[in-house]
Amino acid sequence: MTETATDSAVAARYRDPALASLSATSSVIEQQLRHRSVRAFLGDPVTDDQLTAIVAAASSAPTSSNLQTWSVVAVRDVDRKARLARLAGGQAFIEAAPLFLLWVADLSRARGLAAAAGTRVEATDYLESTLLGVIDAALAAQNAIVAAESLGLGTVCVGGARNHPEEIAAEVGLPSGAFVVFGLAVGVPDPAEPAGVKPRLPQSVVLHHETYSPPSGEDLAAYDERLSGYNATYGLGGGWRERVLARLVGPASMAGRHRLRAQLERLGLISR
Amino acid sequence: MTETATDSAVAARYRDPALASLSATSSVIEQQLRHRSVRAFLGDPVTDDQLTAIVAAASSAPTSSNLQTWSVVAVRDVDRKARLARLAGGQAFIEAAPLFLLWVADLSRARGLAAAAGTRVEATDYLESTLLGVIDAALAAQNAIVAAESLGLGTVCVGGARNHPEEIAAEVGLPSGAFVVFGLAVGVPDPAEPAGVKPRLPQSVVLHHETYSPPSGEDLAAYDERLSGYNATYGLGGGWRERVLARLVGPASMAGRHRLRAQLERLGLISR
Repeated sequence: MTETATDSAVAARYRDPALASLSATSSVIEQQLRHRSVRAFLGDPVTDDQLTAIVAAASSAPTSSNLQTWSVVAVRDVDRKARLARLAGGQAFIEAAPLFLLWVADLSRARGLAAAAGTRVEATDYLESTLLGVIDAALAAQNAIVAAESLGLGTVCVGGARNHPEEIAAEVGLPSGAFVVFGLAVGVPDPAEPAGVKPRLPQSVVLHHETYSPPSGEDLAAYDERLSGYNATYGLGGGWRERVLARLVGPASMAGRHRLRAQLERLGLISR
Repeated sequence: MTETATDSAVAARYRDPALASLSATSSVIEQQLRHRSVRAFLGDPVTDDQLTAIVAAASSAPTSSNLQTWSVVAVRDVDRKARLARLAGGQAFIEAAPLFLLWVADLSRARGLAAAAGTRVEATDYLESTLLGVIDAALAAQNAIVAAESLGLGTVCVGGARNHPEEIAAEVGLPSGAFVVFGLAVGVPDPAEPAGVKPRLPQSVVLHHETYSPPSGEDLAAYDERLSGYNATYGLGGGWRERVLARLVGPASMAGRHRLRAQLERLGLISR
């Protein structure tokens, strides 16, 4: 199903036959290299035991000062998934997935502790704390993704959960001070899905030694060609640069997310 | 070295003997459960091959719309590590680690593409895009942490990199539109370090089914007791609630990070 330049996982990740293998590797890294987004699921459920294991992995990620400013909401109810799918850009795979996890930046728990103690946690009003919650949620979610894949499950992140953050918070009853950073659809991958390992920017572009160096035009052009080759395999057009420019052109390309700052403020994430 | 309630990784993570084992598990999850922060390193270097593998894993994490709005700066220079350690809260283990990785939210690459094409990417001026970069960087970093551990290395996240974001950006020559979200010290763990697997909030507190439910006082009290027990093993005092309140009390407890919003704006992350 997957077209790769060679059969090595690292060559497939970068679509670069020059990278035939990693001399330092592990079965964990080989699994990570084979990650792909899964948007087609079989009917099998994700069991409670699997969910426990996935959340235990999420809890094991680092968290700033052990503050644990994140939560996760596990949605399996068919009607709720349908409503969330509509709010998150109308993506049908959310309904089809047996489990939809909402990763929450959660400052409400700390504020609750403060209220119970008759004090305040003013730091939660600053952008720094909004980022704390976002970082904690993302670190936890990435561990969950790796854990799910190790159990034979597939996942896809859904940034569309930020298209309508207030409606989504209301749908799952989030308290003030919490918002959904992104969703994660989880299920058993349908092996018939036409999708593979998406090639990424070469390390010469993302990895900098000692100080930052801007990408070379040659490296970006080579990547454009690799990504176009991958996309063509799946009947998609367009190079990377073109897609980046289209996606980030401005409010018109942001699916409502240009309003996020005001919306987060209303959700109690002041971000001053 | 590590004191655990039982010898099961999940019981140690939650310091809850009731959780004797996971019925759904994998060697990957067992490794994730055993994660701990490492702040004492042996003299051994992190090799170039190990760095390539770690960054390949980072590149394999999901990224919103394949925008790849992150970079990583690998710092090994002794003097630069010393300067960064001073800027990031004076933490000596940064100097002692053979490798210090700076995880960068990077909107500069997209802006560079736009400039080359004679156009603009106005979306990069919004909070949504600052979060895109932060999320992309965090997902990549968590994959790097898991990969490093699979190679026998240890790591610790350094949020102190946000204490002085402008000085750190200048130190590693970041272009406008980029900032260091956090650092990651990497090296071979010193087995003599007195540290273990830190217990986390029980799943009843962080995992919500269908809708959010506030934590029960009993669950929080039980966690406080577990964490105090863990801390006492290492000669540290204080329960969780007390530490959260102290850490988030306000600007005085934020090590300068209450200024982050204005600083990011000057670094070209407008976040409107």
